[in-house]
Amino acid sequence: MKLGEVVKIQNKAMVFLNKAGIVITPKEHENIEVADFGLNDIRNIGLELVVYENNDRYCAKELILFPRQTCPEHLHPPLSKQNIGKQETFRCRWGEVYLYVEGSRTRKPKAVVPEEYKEYLNVWHEITLLPGEQFTIKPNTRHWFQAGDEGAVVSEFSSTSDDASDVFTDPHIKRLPTVD
Amino acid sequence: MKLGEVVKIQNKAMVFLNKAGIVITPKEHENIEVADFGLNDIRNIGLELVVYENNDRYCAKELILFPRQTCPEHLHPPLSKQNIGKQETFRCRWGEVYLYVEGSRTRKPKAVVPEEYKEYLNVWHEITLLPGEQFTIKPNTRHWFQAGDEGAVVSEFSSTSDDASDVFTDPHIKRLPTVD
Repeated sequence: MKLGEVVKIQNKAMVFLNKAGIVITPKEHENIEVADFGLNDIRNIGLELVVYENNDRYCAKELILFPRQTCPEHLHPPLSKQNIGKQETFRCRWGEVYLYVEGSRTRKPKAVVPEEYKEYLNVWHEITLLPGEQFTIKPNTRHWFQAGDEGAVVSEFSSTSDDASDVFTDPHIKRLPTVD
Repeated sequence: MKLGEVVKIQNKAMVFLNKAGIVITPKEHENIEVADFGLNDIRNIGLELVVYENNDRYCAKELILFPRQTCPEHLHPPLSKQNIGKQETFRCRWGEVYLYVEGSRTRKPKAVVPEEYKEYLNVWHEITLLPGEQFTIKPNTRHWFQAGDEGAVVSEFSSTSDDASDVFTDPHIKRLPTVD
């Protein structure tokens, strides 16, 4: 993405952090990661992230989702004999998020997905997270999530994060640096 | 502590979580951990905790400190050949917290410590954390912290938490269950 567009989206992410009552530093604001997954359709498929800490033992981030924005389906594969893959806990802080994981298909899911992305979504077991609610996603299992009509702010607590190793269902997806 | 007192302190902790805009579930409220470290002086020495997640890889908690409440000096020792001890990142969410770690002694520290506890505080390198500011404490290093006049809410992101292994400087301290 071009820097001008990134800055606009970072500022928009700040609006949602403010709604959630979450304070970040000016430097963290400047470094908000804007992930469009190379699809150039951030209104539908994308995610904004503030990485608080990511070391060789644990990781903590704030995820910002604009209204109906979707983080596309992916999994965190095993990385070594010692590392069975990233495990993560999502805790909704503000708004509403629909999380989809492996399991029985939910009959009337709350997520609204544009037709062209549906073929890349295989798991439809829905977990609704309201503020204060959380769910832990096992390593090496597929998941995706979408914010409700108001957007959402979600804290992610996890083992070490290594975005480059994530496996996405949609073959068009590339995890790129925020700015071209 | 007696259950009645615990409930009172849990309710007080909720007031601070509300000020910080942090939502927890009724069940989490009921399970707020009240640590008086066996000193029976929780107004001065104590800590209130909401444990969001603690598994064999990572841990996330919310720490609540009442005005001028102090978490006493301790360290997280190595636990095995593979585990060099708990590492933790403190991120101030609301209020103001004075964190003391190993390093050069701060000449005019902001913490106000009752005389009788001073002999159990060895490290005086001060780090002030305001909302949005954070600091990572290395394993096996001494630290303690106190909230400012308004109290504080601090997110703790860490490797696995095992309170029973913490080593406190004050020999009178016992880490006990919340309710007698």
